Amino acid sequence: MKVLVVNCGSSSIKYQLYEMPGWTILAKGLVERIGESESSLVQDNGGEKHYREMPVADHEEAMLLILRSLTEGATQVVGSFNEIKAVGHRVVHGGEEFTGSVHINDDVIASIERYADLAPLHNPANLSGIRAAQNALPDIPQVACFDTAFHTTIPKVAYMYALPYELYEQYGIRRYGFHGTSHRWVARRSAKLFGRHKYDINCITCHLGNGCSITAVKDGRSIDTSMGLTPLEGLVMGTRSGSFDPAILFYLAEKGYDTNALKTLCNKKSGLLGISGISNDMRTLVEKAREDDDRAALAIDVFCYGIKKYIGAYAAAMGRVDAIVFTGGIGENSTYVREKICRGFEPLGIILDLLRNKQTVGVEGEISDASSRVKLLVIPTDEERAIAGDTYEIAMEKQKKK
Amino acid sequence: MKVLVVNCGSSSIKYQLYEMPGWTILAKGLVERIGESESSLVQDNGGEKHYREMPVADHEEAMLLILRSLTEGATQVVGSFNEIKAVGHRVVHGGEEFTGSVHINDDVIASIERYADLAPLHNPANLSGIRAAQNALPDIPQVACFDTAFHTTIPKVAYMYALPYELYEQYGIRRYGFHGTSHRWVARRSAKLFGRHKYDINCITCHLGNGCSITAVKDGRSIDTSMGLTPLEGLVMGTRSGSFDPAILFYLAEKGYDTNALKTLCNKKSGLLGISGISNDMRTLVEKAREDDDRAALAIDVFCYGIKKYIGAYAAAMGRVDAIVFTGGIGENSTYVREKICRGFEPLGIILDLLRNKQTVGVEGEISDASSRVKLLVIPTDEERAIAGDTYEIAMEKQKKK
Repeated sequence: MKVLVVNCGSSSIKYQLYEMPGWTILAKGLVERIGESESSLVQDNGGEKHYREMPVADHEEAMLLILRSLTEGATQVVGSFNEIKAVGHRVVHGGEEFTGSVHINDDVIASIERYADLAPLHNPANLSGIRAAQNALPDIPQVACFDTAFHTTIPKVAYMYALPYELYEQYGIRRYGFHGTSHRWVARRSAKLFGRHKYDINCITCHLGNGCSITAVKDGRSIDTSMGLTPLEGLVMGTRSGSFDPAILFYLAEKGYDTNALKTLCNKKSGLLGISGISNDMRTLVEKAREDDDRAALAIDVFCYGIKKYIGAYAAAMGRVDAIVFTGGIGENSTYVREKICRGFEPLGIILDLLRNKQTVGVEGEISDASSRVKLLVIPTDEERAIAGDTYEIAMEKQKKK
Repeated sequence: MKVLVVNCGSSSIKYQLYEMPGWTILAKGLVERIGESESSLVQDNGGEKHYREMPVADHEEAMLLILRSLTEGATQVVGSFNEIKAVGHRVVHGGEEFTGSVHINDDVIASIERYADLAPLHNPANLSGIRAAQNALPDIPQVACFDTAFHTTIPKVAYMYALPYELYEQYGIRRYGFHGTSHRWVARRSAKLFGRHKYDINCITCHLGNGCSITAVKDGRSIDTSMGLTPLEGLVMGTRSGSFDPAILFYLAEKGYDTNALKTLCNKKSGLLGISGISNDMRTLVEKAREDDDRAALAIDVFCYGIKKYIGAYAAAMGRVDAIVFTGGIGENSTYVREKICRGFEPLGIILDLLRNKQTVGVEGEISDASSRVKLLVIPTDEERAIAGDTYEIAMEKQKKK
């Protein structure tokens, strides 16, 4: 069964076409700058990249372009639209309602619209993709996979902020958490590596990419995570600040910053970029730090120190920790960052094997010393694969019911 | 030597008169509602409380009233003003400049004025007290003891926020921390209880009062603390929120809240009061929780869970922890809260002795089980005593120099 996985941003669509079961990738691609005069589509059919530029007015057009690209010309990988039997959509915010992936119907769409209040940049874009796919492929199941779903097991003690309770009741202000598909993926994979059932693992999963979040997974379920109402909270990220004293915003407001300026400051000008003044890219910063650039070194140190503290906090929250898992672009590849995070952890029974760490780049592997009480693992994440899996399962169930 | 310790709020002055060395308290008192029509002074001369109501226009008048109260009538404890040989002032914000208590001269006053930008509610009030005491007692040393001083050893990795670096350079936006006098006091006392030098102790000090903060003390020095640029950050407090996703403020701004409303919300309507909807007083909440009030129980749970996570985070930051110390009104007295914080800590080698915990209320004592790798201590804090000690030392040095 061919399953198309779609991840819609406000001006882009990422897609992958899978042959399921088995997760064979037939093609993957990206349409960018939708709505601008010079949009582009790039598609990779297993090594061979095809690049095209053309105007693409909206998500509707982009979706038709993707389907044409998959079925026609040099980029063709399937005979016709009809061979695609299901579409899986990444949706950022599913509120408290969606505890797992679901078949999309009118009620689901209404809910995604409702949660747009909490994710104004993401849910509307996700919805555009869903509508475009429904119009282009009206007769096959469309499935929504929520970033928040894995975190719906977080208990109230961990999701409530100490703000007036009415804000939770009236606006739904609470911790939701994001990157759930990634955290779930690596938590499940960890259990497999331990040879255990998926609910028989305690691990701390560190998703360190352009966005960063960390999750406490107890008995295979998320019990706490660093992102909150929005993806701003928690760890230091590429250009996002993560947590800071909220009263800093009052201070800056008095200095003349308005809400929009503050939003931009926290989301676009902070994080690794803000501290270093150089770049939001960890690779660049590691290079600069090795050349003794103080601010680059400081940015990396603050980044790693924050992760170290979250690991400690979640160890305290969970009691027993079987594994700490690194994933995402930085987590999978930066031996430098992983070493910095783990340095000084020995008294807590967490011991990195320096050689294994250096040898494990972009691949799955254990990087802890044999004497480490807690296993340190690198597990490449694959949100698209997880979405393809969920979509396939839901599509098969629907077939059975028929 | 008689030393007067003064703690000035915007409309109050707390005072204690000590006989030094030896810390004998001759009298302590409080002037409240300064500037209002019905001000009051209450003074306690060791058990006997004297209460008076009268209009008190400003801090100047209040200070003269305090001195009269100490030297005249039924409340008299010293023969005349001249017997008071030094005054110690609590000052909230000393920026990066003051790493310890100092004799107050014009430069110090100018600095305290400068840091008022960072502590607009506190430093001006502290300054009013200093000026009033200088006018009333012009010939004796006045000493400033800063809430921030103990935290000036925090390394850059822990005090920098991941905001644009220019905000640190231009406005001094960084973590400063507060309650330093209290954290220092209990850290020093911990070292004594271990029979060690003051710089030979690793402890996590939990100051849990109406305001709450927690400090990682490594080798006797603060290396991290939960309060930041302001006392809003960190732990859940009586009416303060502690940390939360800063983007919640953007969300609420879009719902129509202005900066003043948000400030009031975070500082006065949040914390234990905000979650419970009942009270900011832990004793009330524990009673209510025992009567099965869900929101009261939730407020306590969120409060304790936050502390538990900070303890874990600081353990990760420090590596080795000798002791966890509870102080402040809640820390010294709430057996219920201490039990909740420590529950589930056993895998980390932190084991509470339930009986000792119940028996240690408002007094110093060890409450950990003999098998606990980390000692759990209750140490009543005494900021006034610490200020008296600093003031006495500085006054003695000045005498020697003459």
